[in-house]
Amino acid sequence: MAYGEVDQKCINTIRVLAVDATFKANSGHPGAPMGMAPVSHVLFNKFMKFNPKNPDWINRDRFVLSNGHGCMLQYALLHLFGYALSIDDLKNFRQVDSITPGHPEAHDTPGIEVTTGPLGQGFSNAVGLAIAQAHTAAYFNKPGFDLINNHTFVFFGDGCAMEGIASEAASMAGHLQLGNLIAIYDDNHISIDGDTNCAFTEDVVKRFEAYGWHVQHVEKGDDDLEGIETAIKKAKEVKDKPSMIKLTTTIGFGSKLQGTHGVHGNPLKEDDCKAVKSKFGFDPEKSFDVPQEVYDFYHKTASAGAAAEVEWNQLFEKYGKEHKELYEDLKRRLSGKLPEGWQEHLPTYKATDKAIASRKLSESVLEAIHKAVPELISGSADLTGSNNTRWKDATDFQPPSTGLGDWNGRYMRYGVREHAMAAAMNGMAAYGTIIPAGGTFLNFVSYAAGAVRLSSLSHQRVIYVATHDSIGLGEDGPTHQPIETLAHFRALPNMMVWRPADGNETSAAYYVALTSKSTPSILALTRQNLPQLEGSTIEKAIKGGYVALEAEKAQLTLVSTGSEVGISLEAVKVLKDKHNITARVVSMPCVEVFDAQSRDYRLSVIPDGIPTMSFEVMSTLGWEKYSHEQFGLNRFGASGPYLEVYKKFDFTPEGVAKRGAQTVDFYKDVKPLRSPLNRAFNNLI
Amino acid sequence: MAYGEVDQKCINTIRVLAVDATFKANSGHPGAPMGMAPVSHVLFNKFMKFNPKNPDWINRDRFVLSNGHGCMLQYALLHLFGYALSIDDLKNFRQVDSITPGHPEAHDTPGIEVTTGPLGQGFSNAVGLAIAQAHTAAYFNKPGFDLINNHTFVFFGDGCAMEGIASEAASMAGHLQLGNLIAIYDDNHISIDGDTNCAFTEDVVKRFEAYGWHVQHVEKGDDDLEGIETAIKKAKEVKDKPSMIKLTTTIGFGSKLQGTHGVHGNPLKEDDCKAVKSKFGFDPEKSFDVPQEVYDFYHKTASAGAAAEVEWNQLFEKYGKEHKELYEDLKRRLSGKLPEGWQEHLPTYKATDKAIASRKLSESVLEAIHKAVPELISGSADLTGSNNTRWKDATDFQPPSTGLGDWNGRYMRYGVREHAMAAAMNGMAAYGTIIPAGGTFLNFVSYAAGAVRLSSLSHQRVIYVATHDSIGLGEDGPTHQPIETLAHFRALPNMMVWRPADGNETSAAYYVALTSKSTPSILALTRQNLPQLEGSTIEKAIKGGYVALEAEKAQLTLVSTGSEVGISLEAVKVLKDKHNITARVVSMPCVEVFDAQSRDYRLSVIPDGIPTMSFEVMSTLGWEKYSHEQFGLNRFGASGPYLEVYKKFDFTPEGVAKRGAQTVDFYKDVKPLRSPLNRAFNNLI
Repeated sequence: MAYGEVDQKCINTIRVLAVDATFKANSGHPGAPMGMAPVSHVLFNKFMKFNPKNPDWINRDRFVLSNGHGCMLQYALLHLFGYALSIDDLKNFRQVDSITPGHPEAHDTPGIEVTTGPLGQGFSNAVGLAIAQAHTAAYFNKPGFDLINNHTFVFFGDGCAMEGIASEAASMAGHLQLGNLIAIYDDNHISIDGDTNCAFTEDVVKRFEAYGWHVQHVEKGDDDLEGIETAIKKAKEVKDKPSMIKLTTTIGFGSKLQGTHGVHGNPLKEDDCKAVKSKFGFDPEKSFDVPQEVYDFYHKTASAGAAAEVEWNQLFEKYGKEHKELYEDLKRRLSGKLPEGWQEHLPTYKATDKAIASRKLSESVLEAIHKAVPELISGSADLTGSNNTRWKDATDFQPPSTGLGDWNGRYMRYGVREHAMAAAMNGMAAYGTIIPAGGTFLNFVSYAAGAVRLSSLSHQRVIYVATHDSIGLGEDGPTHQPIETLAHFRALPNMMVWRPADGNETSAAYYVALTSKSTPSILALTRQNLPQLEGSTIEKAIKGGYVALEAEKAQLTLVSTGSEVGISLEAVKVLKDKHNITARVVSMPCVEVFDAQSRDYRLSVIPDGIPTMSFEVMSTLGWEKYSHEQFGLNRFGASGPYLEVYKKFDFTPEGVAKRGAQTVDFYKDVKPLRSPLNRAFNNLI
Repeated sequence: MAYGEVDQKCINTIRVLAVDATFKANSGHPGAPMGMAPVSHVLFNKFMKFNPKNPDWINRDRFVLSNGHGCMLQYALLHLFGYALSIDDLKNFRQVDSITPGHPEAHDTPGIEVTTGPLGQGFSNAVGLAIAQAHTAAYFNKPGFDLINNHTFVFFGDGCAMEGIASEAASMAGHLQLGNLIAIYDDNHISIDGDTNCAFTEDVVKRFEAYGWHVQHVEKGDDDLEGIETAIKKAKEVKDKPSMIKLTTTIGFGSKLQGTHGVHGNPLKEDDCKAVKSKFGFDPEKSFDVPQEVYDFYHKTASAGAAAEVEWNQLFEKYGKEHKELYEDLKRRLSGKLPEGWQEHLPTYKATDKAIASRKLSESVLEAIHKAVPELISGSADLTGSNNTRWKDATDFQPPSTGLGDWNGRYMRYGVREHAMAAAMNGMAAYGTIIPAGGTFLNFVSYAAGAVRLSSLSHQRVIYVATHDSIGLGEDGPTHQPIETLAHFRALPNMMVWRPADGNETSAAYYVALTSKSTPSILALTRQNLPQLEGSTIEKAIKGGYVALEAEKAQLTLVSTGSEVGISLEAVKVLKDKHNITARVVSMPCVEVFDAQSRDYRLSVIPDGIPTMSFEVMSTLGWEKYSHEQFGLNRFGASGPYLEVYKKFDFTPEGVAKRGAQTVDFYKDVKPLRSPLNRAFNNLI
C-alpha cells in the first residue's frame, strides 16, 4: 500500500508519453490519459493479472478503455508492460498502417480487448466480457479448479455515462449481479462542449445505485493512490453486485490548461509540453523518454503476470487429467474451431416438406445444434416468443438467487435493450469461449447500429437473429417494417447479411455464420410461412447465391431473396403462360458470401447475354450491382394482413412477371448485354 | 373529484373497444389499453385541453403514447372524443390503407401527435415537445398573454423504460427542468418475455430521481381514480422539474389472462371477449357497441376544449393588436412557411474564394440566416466546436436558474445523447413552431438510426448536421469514419442525404432542407477544406445533381459528391494528359432531390452514349443506380493524416483517372450504351 517516488515517476511517464505522442501526431486526446494515469498505475500493478507475452491467456483480467479517445493511456501502458508495442509504435500514433490508431482497435493491436471510441460501447462490451466470464466459470470450474476467475475492469467518462447504450448495459449488469465487473468512472466534469454542467447534471452515483450496483467515490483521483487502491480492493470483495467507483480527476493534469476542455481533444502547445515535462522532472528537450526504473517497475509486474500464467497452465493440465472432456472442450473453444461433425445436426428439407416461417426454421436449427455446439449462447431483447431463439430445455443465464436460472445457463434475457445486447455480444465473443446469437426484429437491429458496426470492425463472430424481416410481418405496420435495413448492413464491410428462402438456406446461413471466425452475421428471417424450394440444398446455399431454377434458352434471370424466391418461382410460370418468356431463378441468400465466390461461378449464376431483374420487397438500393432492373419497395410499407400488403404493392407472381417482361423487352437491342457482375475494374480494395 | 358509474362505463368502453378491435383484426395488443383505460379517462377528461375539431390548435395539451403498440387505447379515445376517426375506422384496425394502423402514425391520423411504437421514441419525442413548448412560451408569451402554456403528457411502459434512448431523454429533461412534462409509467410488470423480473429489476423511481425528476407512485392504477387525479394535479404544480408518476396497473384488466404476457400482444379468445363484456355490463353478443352516455360524456369534454380554443383565439387576436410582429411571426410559423426573402441571406461563393471545410460553410450559413429564420433552433450532441453548429451570439436553451442560458435560447446542448437528440428533434418539429437542426459526427447519426427513421416516416422537417463525413476526418480512424452510412440513409424513404462539394452547394442544401416541409435532411459535411468549384451555383445545386464541368465530345462522365468533386475535376486533366480521354464531371450533392427532377433533365446530366463512373470515398452500394462503374471504399478506413489516408486507397486524381480510362475501354463496344437512369420500368412505387 505504500506508494513512493517510483510510482509517481511511472504515473508521470504515462502522462508525458501521452503528451509526446499527441504532440508528434499533432492530433489526439492528451487530457484523459493525464487524468487517469494514477488509477491506471494502481490498477495494473496492484490488481490486474495479465501476461504481456501472451495477450490471449484466457484467465487474464480484462481491461477496457471505454473512453477510447484516451487510447494513448492504453498504448503507453501496453508499451511499458512489454506488450508487442514498441516506442516506435508510440511515435507512429495516429499514422496510416500503425498499430496505434486514433482509437483502440482490438483486431490490430496486441493487448486491446475490444474496439472502443464510439462512446458507451466499451462499457457495454465490458458487461459482455463479465457475462462471458461468469458463464465460462460456471461451466468449467470444478472443486479445486478455480480455472476461470478473472475480473473485467472498465474505465468510462462522462460521454459514456450519457450514452443510452451504457444505461442499458448498466441496468442489465445490475440485474445480472455481475460481481466480476468493476467500472471506474472518470468524473472530470469536462466533455467536448465544456463543463458537464451545461448538459449533464444528473446524480450518476444514485443512478447506478438504482441499477443495483455497489458504488464508491474517491474524491482525490489525481493523487490519492491509497484511496484508489482501497476502493478497488473493496469493489473486488463485493461478489453479488457490479461495482462502480466514481473517481474525481483533473483532465489534463499537469498542463497549463488542466481542468478545461482545451486539453480534451487537442495536443498541448509546445511550451506547455515542455512545462509539463519540467514539472514532472523530465528533460523538457527530450521526447518519448522513458526512465529505465519505470520499465523495470512495470516489467516486474509483467513477470509476475507471466508466472501466474505458468501456474495457471499447470492447473489447467492437472484439470485435463481429472476433467478430460471439459478440458478438451475449452481447448477447442479457444482455438475457435467448432466440434467435429456438429454440422451433421443441421436440419435439411425436401420440397415436399411443409411451409414454415424462417424464424421457426431458425428455431429448429438452434434446437438441433445446441447440444453439439456448447459455446453457442442464444438470447433475445425481450422477443423470445417472436424471435424463436430459445431451445426447449434451455436454462436462462441468471443469478441463481433469482430462482430463474443459473450462471451456466445459455439463454440470455437481454430485456428491451437492443443496443446493449449487441455490444454485450461483442464483449462475449471477445472473451473467447462463446459464440453469442441474439434476437430482435430486423427493424430494431437499427437501434443497435453503433454496436453492429463494431461487430464488423472488430471481427467478432456474433449472430443477429433478425426476425420479422419485411412488410411480410403485416399488421404491425410501417413502424416495424424494414425498408432500408438490408441495404444499410450490406453496405457495412465485413458483415454477412443472410435472408434465407427456406429450411435448407436457413441451415446454410447458420453453417456459414458459425464457421466464419472473424465475421458477424445478420440472419433476416420471416414471420410468415415459406415453402421449401425444389432446388435448394445447404451445399448450394453456402455459396451465397445459386441457381434455384435453371431453364434452357432462358431469356431472363430473376434474382431474389427470402420470401420473394417462392414468388419468383411462381412468376416464372406466369412469364411463360402470359408473356411467352422463359425465365430462370437465382436465390441469393447472402450477397457478401456470393461476392467471395470465383468469377466463373458468379457469372454462371448471373450470366452474360440475358437481362437480370431483382425482386426483394424493400429498398432496391444496391441491387443494381447484381441486376439490370430492380423491383422492390422504395417507400414505407403498410399495416395489414401480409398478403394484402403484398398485393397493394403488386408483389405477386403477376406483378413480378409484368416487370420481367418489361425488362426483357427493354434489353432486347443491347449488344453485348453483359452480366452486371462483369465490371471494368475491381472496386473491392 | 367524485367518480361514479358513468366514469366506470367510459373506462370499460375503452377496454371493450380495444378487445373488439384486436379481436376483429386478429392481431394487436389489448393488454395495455385495458390496463391504462382508467388513467386515460382521468387525464383526458380532467386535465387535457384539446379540441377534436381542430387537432392543430397550437396551445393544445400534447399526448404521446410511447408504448405505441397499445394504440387501440388512443384510437378509442380519439373516436370517443369526436376526432375524425369513426367507428368504422376502429373496425378497420390494422387493415391496409386504414387510418388505424398497427402503431400510431402522426402523418396519417388526426390527433396523433407523433409516430410511436418503436420503444422509447415517444417518450423522447415528448421531451422534444416539452422543449418546444418551453421555448415557444418564452419567445412569444408577454405580460397578460399567457399564450403558450400547454403541457405534454406521455404514457410509457417497461419496454420504453429499458430503452437507452429514453434514459438519455430522461436525463436531458431532468437537466432542462422541464416542468411542463408529465410522464406516466405503466408499471404492469409484464413485457413480452413475461415478468419483468427476468430482465428488469432496477429501481425506476430512484433512477428518475437521479435524473432530477419529481416522482410519485400510485399503487392502485386499476381503480384509484382519485389517487390518479391527485397525482397528476400535484405533478402539474411542480414547475421546475419534469414529473414521473409510476402507476401500478394490471395488464389486460378484465381478461381471464389479466396480469400475464398472454394478454400483451395477442387478441383475447372469443370466450374471453364475451366474458370481459359481461363482466363490464356490456352485451357479450355485440361488438363495437358504445353506450350513448359515454359519447355524451366525452363530447362534453370535447366541447369544453373547443370553447377553450375559441377563448384562446380571442386572446391571440388581442395579442395581435399589442404585439403585431410576434403575432405575424407565430401565424407564419404555424403555416410552415419561411419568412419572405430569408434565402437572400444564404452565402454565395466564387471559384476564387478560398478553400473551406463544409462544416465551416455550414456554420456560415447558420450565422447568415439565423436572424432571418427565427424558428431555427440549432444544437449539438456535445460536439459544438467540431460540428460548428453554433452562431456567435447564440443563447443556450437552458433553465435560467443555471445561469447558462434562457428558455428562449436557440442553441441546444443535447449532451452525448445522439439518439435522444434525434427523437427530441422529432418532437420539437412536431410541435409546430420550430425547425430543429442538430449536430453530431456522421458516423454517430447511426446511433440515432431508430429516431432518424421516424423523422422520415412521420414527415418531420428535421436537419441533421453530420460533420466528419468520411475517411477525410483522418486521424480519428476507422471507428469514426463512415463507410456504410450514406448508403443506409439513401435507402431510407423520405430522407434527403446532402453531401455538398463547396459553399454554394452547402447553401443549396440548407435551402432545400429548410423549404421541404415534410422531409428531413442529413447534411454530410467535411472536416477538411474544400475548394470552391468553378461551375457551382445555388440554383444548379438545388436540383440535387448538375453538370459541374461540361465537355464537348466527352467520352466519360465522372459523378461524385462532396470532397470528391474537386478530385474528379483534377482527374479530368489527368485523363486528358495521360489517357487522351475527354471527361465531364457531375456533382451530385443529393440523389433523392436529383431523382425528383424531370427525366429529360436527369438524362441531360447523366446521358446515354457514354459510360459514367461514380467516385465517393465510402461504400459504392447504390451508386450502380447512377453509374456504370463505381470507385469507392468497400472496407473500413484507416487512421492517419487525411491526405495519407486518401493516398493509401488510391483516391487521387491519378487513381480516379486510371479507373476512368478502364471504364471507357470496357464500354467501348456496347451498343446502345444507355444511361443508368434509363430503365425498363419505374421502381418508385
